Amino acid sequence: MKTPIPDYLDEVLDSLRNDTSGNTAQYIPELAQANPDLFALSVTTATGSTYSAGDHLEEFTIQSISKPFAYAAAIMDRGLDRVLRSVGVEASGEAFNELSLEEGTHRPKNPMINAGAIMTHGLLVAEDASTEDRVARVLELFSQLAGRELRIDESVYASEMETADRNLATAHMLRSYGILGTDAHEVVSGYTRQCSILVTVEDLSLMSATLANGGVQPRTLERVLSEGIAQQVMSVMAVAGMYDGAGDWLTRVGIPAKSGVAGGLVGVLPDQVGIGAFSPRLDAHGNSQRAGRAFERLSTDMGLHLFAPSSGQLDVVDVHQEATREIFVLQGNVQFTAASELLDLMAASTSRTAVLVDISRVYSFTTVARRMALEGLRRLRLDGRRVFLNDPLQVLANPDLGDGTYPETP
Amino acid sequence: MKTPIPDYLDEVLDSLRNDTSGNTAQYIPELAQANPDLFALSVTTATGSTYSAGDHLEEFTIQSISKPFAYAAAIMDRGLDRVLRSVGVEASGEAFNELSLEEGTHRPKNPMINAGAIMTHGLLVAEDASTEDRVARVLELFSQLAGRELRIDESVYASEMETADRNLATAHMLRSYGILGTDAHEVVSGYTRQCSILVTVEDLSLMSATLANGGVQPRTLERVLSEGIAQQVMSVMAVAGMYDGAGDWLTRVGIPAKSGVAGGLVGVLPDQVGIGAFSPRLDAHGNSQRAGRAFERLSTDMGLHLFAPSSGQLDVVDVHQEATREIFVLQGNVQFTAASELLDLMAASTSRTAVLVDISRVYSFTTVARRMALEGLRRLRLDGRRVFLNDPLQVLANPDLGDGTYPETP
Amino acid sequence: MKTPIPDYLDEVLDSLRNDTSGNTAQYIPELAQANPDLFALSVTTATGSTYSAGDHLEEFTIQSISKPFAYAAAIMDRGLDRVLRSVGVEASGEAFNELSLEEGTHRPKNPMINAGAIMTHGLLVAEDASTEDRVARVLELFSQLAGRELRIDESVYASEMETADRNLATAHMLRSYGILGTDAHEVVSGYTRQCSILVTVEDLSLMSATLANGGVQPRTLERVLSEGIAQQVMSVMAVAGMYDGAGDWLTRVGIPAKSGVAGGLVGVLPDQVGIGAFSPRLDAHGNSQRAGRAFERLSTDMGLHLFAPSSGQLDVVDVHQEATREIFVLQGNVQFTAASELLDLMAASTSRTAVLVDISRVYSFTTVARRMALEGLRRLRLDGRRVFLNDPLQVLANPDLGDGTYPETP
Amino acid sequence: MKTPIPDYLDEVLDSLRNDTSGNTAQYIPELAQANPDLFALSVTTATGSTYSAGDHLEEFTIQSISKPFAYAAAIMDRGLDRVLRSVGVEASGEAFNELSLEEGTHRPKNPMINAGAIMTHGLLVAEDASTEDRVARVLELFSQLAGRELRIDESVYASEMETADRNLATAHMLRSYGILGTDAHEVVSGYTRQCSILVTVEDLSLMSATLANGGVQPRTLERVLSEGIAQQVMSVMAVAGMYDGAGDWLTRVGIPAKSGVAGGLVGVLPDQVGIGAFSPRLDAHGNSQRAGRAFERLSTDMGLHLFAPSSGQLDVVDVHQEATREIFVLQGNVQFTAASELLDLMAASTSRTAVLVDISRVYSFTTVARRMALEGLRRLRLDGRRVFLNDPLQVLANPDLGDGTYPETP
Repeated sequence: MKTPIPDYLDEVLDSLRNDTSGNTAQYIPELAQANPDLFALSVTTATGSTYSAGDHLEEFTIQSISKPFAYAAAIMDRGLDRVLRSVGVEASGEAFNELSLEEGTHRPKNPMINAGAIMTHGLLVAEDASTEDRVARVLELFSQLAGRELRIDESVYASEMETADRNLATAHMLRSYGILGTDAHEVVSGYTRQCSILVTVEDLSLMSATLANGGVQPRTLERVLSEGIAQQVMSVMAVAGMYDGAGDWLTRVGIPAKSGVAGGLVGVLPDQVGIGAFSPRLDAHGNSQRAGRAFERLSTDMGLHLFAPSSGQLDVVDVHQEATREIFVLQGNVQFTAASELLDLMAASTSRTAVLVDISRVYSFTTVARRMALEGLRRLRLDGRRVFLNDPLQVLANPDLGDGTYPETP
Repeated sequence: MKTPIPDYLDEVLDSLRNDTSGNTAQYIPELAQANPDLFALSVTTATGSTYSAGDHLEEFTIQSISKPFAYAAAIMDRGLDRVLRSVGVEASGEAFNELSLEEGTHRPKNPMINAGAIMTHGLLVAEDASTEDRVARVLELFSQLAGRELRIDESVYASEMETADRNLATAHMLRSYGILGTDAHEVVSGYTRQCSILVTVEDLSLMSATLANGGVQPRTLERVLSEGIAQQVMSVMAVAGMYDGAGDWLTRVGIPAKSGVAGGLVGVLPDQVGIGAFSPRLDAHGNSQRAGRAFERLSTDMGLHLFAPSSGQLDVVDVHQEATREIFVLQGNVQFTAASELLDLMAASTSRTAVLVDISRVYSFTTVARRMALEGLRRLRLDGRRVFLNDPLQVLANPDLGDGTYPETP
Repeated sequence: MKTPIPDYLDEVLDSLRNDTSGNTAQYIPELAQANPDLFALSVTTATGSTYSAGDHLEEFTIQSISKPFAYAAAIMDRGLDRVLRSVGVEASGEAFNELSLEEGTHRPKNPMINAGAIMTHGLLVAEDASTEDRVARVLELFSQLAGRELRIDESVYASEMETADRNLATAHMLRSYGILGTDAHEVVSGYTRQCSILVTVEDLSLMSATLANGGVQPRTLERVLSEGIAQQVMSVMAVAGMYDGAGDWLTRVGIPAKSGVAGGLVGVLPDQVGIGAFSPRLDAHGNSQRAGRAFERLSTDMGLHLFAPSSGQLDVVDVHQEATREIFVLQGNVQFTAASELLDLMAASTSRTAVLVDISRVYSFTTVARRMALEGLRRLRLDGRRVFLNDPLQVLANPDLGDGTYPETP
Repeated sequence: MKTPIPDYLDEVLDSLRNDTSGNTAQYIPELAQANPDLFALSVTTATGSTYSAGDHLEEFTIQSISKPFAYAAAIMDRGLDRVLRSVGVEASGEAFNELSLEEGTHRPKNPMINAGAIMTHGLLVAEDASTEDRVARVLELFSQLAGRELRIDESVYASEMETADRNLATAHMLRSYGILGTDAHEVVSGYTRQCSILVTVEDLSLMSATLANGGVQPRTLERVLSEGIAQQVMSVMAVAGMYDGAGDWLTRVGIPAKSGVAGGLVGVLPDQVGIGAFSPRLDAHGNSQRAGRAFERLSTDMGLHLFAPSSGQLDVVDVHQEATREIFVLQGNVQFTAASELLDLMAASTSRTAVLVDISRVYSFTTVARRMALEGLRRLRLDGRRVFLNDPLQVLANPDLGDGTYPETP
């Protein structure tokens, strides 16, 4: 058999193909000439499976979609505190090219608007980095995220530099407030190169699947970003990724996303998927018309929404009595909810027999869930019971009960 | 043994108890007199376990925390489209008592600011509802959500009506734009009663756990809200619940939340928990100082963050070969990611023996995951293989393969 | 002969009569029904001559034109400092019905927007005045300014109170900031009565000619306002009278003005004229279309512009030598410029004969010009010359040279 | 004797000399080093008398005071319509360095803020002018206005170019909207040179006295600007000269003014005076602290306020009966008010004798007043009376009564 998912993605594209509203970006000559009929979609799961449809081999410039990933690079290079001193995390409620500086601090409101992205680019690598250093940095990181060597479209770069007045205005403004230290022309040049990196929808879906997967590229299995940075980047995409329509997008579609003026659109759902879409015709807000609608279909059809509730009752813990032991069984990825349920069941237990906690079907514990499970075992032993742990995969690793002793193995 | 979670919550409260910064709400006499030292915290899981600490039996007025729940009621009563015509879903980037009407439509920007909440209250029940009808409506819904009969604090109501000028201004303004049809004094009176409903932190944690659980009250197991409404309410809380600090809150704490001027704070993480906290001293933004810090602790200590990645690799599908059958095993709550992996494994299978899909350890399928699994089975049979389904709990209910036939039972 | 000015005014009306663009105020039923073809114009000089044309006997409600005159009343009643504490003097750059409160103080930005006018009405008479007191106050002052007994149109008042939501919103908002102390409904009721006072274009031209004449009603010769209050009122009209088009109006037309939603328009040029016009059809900004154009004609045709330079060289002082005396002749209204020229001529004089200053053709001295002229005479006497003053009309009154002595009479 | 005006100006300076609040402009190194104790004042009447006090020979850079005069140059060079297409005339209500572009048109709101001044500089001379052309143009015009050859301070220019980021930002922004056609660096360089022209307070008082005098330099008697341009410039100074405190300044001081960051301040009252003041310490708004207070003194002491009413009744027309003729006597500068009074008196005349109009003491007629006077004479002749005109100075020039005939000479 063949997996039906590509068929489904094809069907999504087909259902939207006759929407020819909007236009390619007219103010950048190289983009204005793009083939407006191109249309592609790609989904990569947090487990590394990629499904693509349409013109998924077509390369286009990443443009503003570079912003969240360059933001990740800046945090890696300079630390979150340093970055927050120069770029905020609040929605701007304004179009992408507004300055939107915060009163008082004069920080750009967030890294998803141009002012914030230019500032972020200026933070890359180190205070005294060169333009080449900064461009090399994003090219390297984006390549790691995509899992292949990316390159810059020099003709788009050159075309955009000719109409870079607004970005130059922004850079000079940031300099005038003493926030940006680097030369205005240099930082705009580097930022424009960053925007001119060529990607496919598959690259985008892999880049965002890395975020969804907590920073580990799900195909190369390389840890590209720390969990904390992935969390920060996804949060900021949720708050500010879709400019002035952020609330409408988050309620209706529910996939934190970022669009680019070349027609790309990237989205992410934590622990689930990264999505890339591409169609060069833009709506009135400068977002790709058909890529946006494709996201809506995925959200509606597949329940891909940040706040889509699971359709069923969670019931991840089981308890039963054997001859001489009371057995608690856990499975799946154990977070706070399952761990707290385990503790409830343990607390309710009045049996005086031995206890076996079976986690052979558990794939992971969060840090807090691990601590909670071990604390439960420790307390049961304080109650005078023998304590066994069945953990053939060593998911809990070193299960010290806090006093240098360990549960028995079954 | 005793579950250690209450101890943990106690420790959170103790660690913050000496933060006596801020003041009770000074502009409402009844609230100004509140005992400033009260401090309580309650967590209810989506599975219905409640853990509380501190003054968790203390009642206080719900105030602005009523807004997301009254919004849910208005959507139930009038439909989402009707509500969206009068109240937007965008962040206002402003303090709670700004008018923040959208240009052009003059809709309040969202239901979390006062203008939007007053408008929302005016939509309750039906166009020609009376003030009493509307107040009875929220009292009934809030009681269902909390799982107990709630009541109104008439003296707080009376006290707030004496300083209701800003709300009256707002109601008159909405009337002047033709958005609000009801009498200005009546709607403000009803809204103020809504804000004067008495709750405890346990009520709040249960109300929000109902959202986390997709609309089903996790203790009474009553479906109080539809999944779609729960999703809409959580989305809007994420976008606009924390007023002008929404981005800072979402990145740093990551728990969609709503505060009230009496010192309450409610938060929700879909599929995980509802949280209520209470401490009457307010910070400069009008949010409870210590309740906010308690949320920060929960987020940091327990990984309770909307974008906190799971700490491990998901691996929810297993495949192995028995004598005459190839067996695919699924477990947990199956969403798109697991279903797509199942389809990948099926597509990779080159064996010509029979196939058994074992879902005896699956608790739920999302609609799309169910469709995907059945489609996989249908295609395998088209490949000429016999197809078995082990589903003792009838999780898939009527597993029609699309042609009126069903998989065999093992 | 007949003075040709009414013919000119008739011609102005005739040239604009076929401009039927715009509509009567649609949101106030009583105003919507006004006869849209009415058209009237009236000019009163600072010397009390009134010229009128068109429907100049037609009464209409004064509406927002009441604002500058009620502002004058409030300053008389409470003092400028008290009024400035509650109402600013800055342009709002916004439409007339925006709240436009200043950051920090929450004062309405000026008394020409509704928020400022409602606040101003609330200041009338005294802190504990009744609504009746305040209405009686403006009715009395407006009658003095117009030189006849004015009255209120109760049906327009009743009609406007039915759609007073925005004004009620404004009043409640001012109360919520603690700026307005009186009951919101009462102050809006009083303010709406103020707006419902009936006037003709002649009334308007006389009211503003009183401002032009420094506060003295030019026909009754009653001092109705102090010079300082007239100056304050004209200044604020220049800054804020024409709402968001203030700069365009001041550069192009140059007549500080105030319009009303019933179609009235009042203008003033200090020392020259007061103008009233009336035509009920309003342009997109809510100003009378034809009344505005009539003002433009007056400005263009007659040089009635605040910054229109005189067309010729001023030469108000003459000096010549008689047999035994040097004679300095002044004429007109002597301000700083003429007085300084007199002093220059005196300083240049090298003659040692007696001096005669002839002011028999002078109508007035400003305070400073009087001081300058007397100081010049004092210094000439110190130079050892005999000093004579010819002042048959006693324009200088008590011409003490600063040492108890006086100039000789010729 | 010596004229006492310089003594008065000295006294004004002395009374304010101990106000050492504020600081020299710290962000421009060359200005930061200025001697903060310098203090000078100069008044020039519209008749060309200049009175100065303090450090009136001290040169300083003109800075933003160049804006109104460069605006005049741009209107001369390109026409008012062309200039209005690129720069508005509305108050910005914001600080001098805000962009303040109008919605929709993206025009800078007025020529007094930096964005408008940079745009205005870019309009100078012609579309294809060079930077040198534009700088030469303002240097030439400013020299004509001051009546002496001015020059540029190249070290201040160089110092300001090093911190020109905000102006460069502004120029790039104007370019990005397609409003500014010239190179961003070039226009900022030229504008900064314009700001670096050296002036004394006497230069400033002469430059503005030229505006007060309707465009004729009162000492060289050269017509430097047309009346219409002088009127436009003074109007815009009144609306926007004092940035965000425009209304406070216009009501309280009443002298349309413009300040510069080097400590200069220029003011103008039409037909009366031009004023220049200088003191390098700036208040929080960036205006010279002591220069501003000196203006307040002049306004209060000398009634120099745009809306200061004349202190007396105008009575410029006289009528009396001789043996065979009725004689109407006019004097001064005849504008609408006097002319209309003349016509009233003529209309009231029932005598059938001949008429003599004596204008031997009239210095000027406005265009409309001239037309009114001649129309009165024409109508009297139509009534059958003989008409004489005594006009020895030919003030009315060619007194054609509209039918090719003339009044008789007496």
